[in-house]
Amino acid sequence: MALIHAPVYNKNGQIVAASITNLDLHDIARACATYGIRRYYIVHPAETQRLLAERIMSFWQEGFGSTYNPDRKEAFAHVRLASSLEEVTREIALETGVAPLTVGTDARRYPRTVNYAALRRKLEQETGAYVLIFGTGWGLLKEEMAKMDFILEPLYGPSEYNHLSVRSAVSIILDRLRGRQNVK
Amino acid sequence: MALIHAPVYNKNGQIVAASITNLDLHDIARACATYGIRRYYIVHPAETQRLLAERIMSFWQEGFGSTYNPDRKEAFAHVRLASSLEEVTREIALETGVAPLTVGTDARRYPRTVNYAALRRKLEQETGAYVLIFGTGWGLLKEEMAKMDFILEPLYGPSEYNHLSVRSAVSIILDRLRGRQNVK
Repeated sequence: MALIHAPVYNKNGQIVAASITNLDLHDIARACATYGIRRYYIVHPAETQRLLAERIMSFWQEGFGSTYNPDRKEAFAHVRLASSLEEVTREIALETGVAPLTVGTDARRYPRTVNYAALRRKLEQETGAYVLIFGTGWGLLKEEMAKMDFILEPLYGPSEYNHLSVRSAVSIILDRLRGRQNVK
Repeated sequence: MALIHAPVYNKNGQIVAASITNLDLHDIARACATYGIRRYYIVHPAETQRLLAERIMSFWQEGFGSTYNPDRKEAFAHVRLASSLEEVTREIALETGVAPLTVGTDARRYPRTVNYAALRRKLEQETGAYVLIFGTGWGLLKEEMAKMDFILEPLYGPSEYNHLSVRSAVSIILDRLRGRQNVK
């Protein structure tokens, strides 16, 4: 999974870099650990932002937090930092020997989409690497979405309101793709 | 939906009151708006905590935030504050004329649980009021869980790690109970 902080849209449709936030690290790392995601990439082009993320995580991995809350240490063990989506796909390709298929997510509707059940079957039945991509702020650029191998449908409940936080959207999508429905 | 801040367990199993956090207001209000939840109750016995929540929300409902981000104003329109779960159920009973059925959630396994598909059918087919209850901190007290009309299964992915944030758990459970699977 990759969480892209730049380039993304802001609320006025301008292209910006969003800041890394503490809760995006914590909540999403915990969701990734729950749903068996191999690696959670935090993507930001600015080195100072990546250093901030590293400092937060080292508290929970090596500092006081690692003994205070070992569950958090386990969650952060799967987190990596990267400067761009290209760096992410290159690293996955180098390690697995195959170029990963990219899966874009967005609250906007795109004409070419794959539904959750179909992608879930692919993940379960096919070999190869996939990278699930989320944008912070007001989402990923249209040009970037156009390059994706797959685009997931936006999330909707019974209403037309679909302004979920990226933390909520990641959690729901991971559950749709990887959740166990009956626990007993 | 009700988010209980006290009494809840802390990580050592002691009974405590947890603080209201900004992101629990925002993320969960947005998820509730997306999934058509009639009312999101923030439950805390301390008046100072409820006043803090009110102050944050008034910024987004009446202050600068209401014009800066009207989506947030819409989300907060469904939020109410209460001092206890009893106050919540009493208010729902007064307004709807029926005592609401309580649905408890927990990351722990309880012997008596209802699965998501069964509860979803109930919500769609039966009349009456339901209140979905989440605990902050390390979860709701066992004695409180014992009083629930229904208890939902804990959330699991492919692994045994299940330390989701309450924001993630709420989002996923609302999607399981109310999400639309095909948008087109």
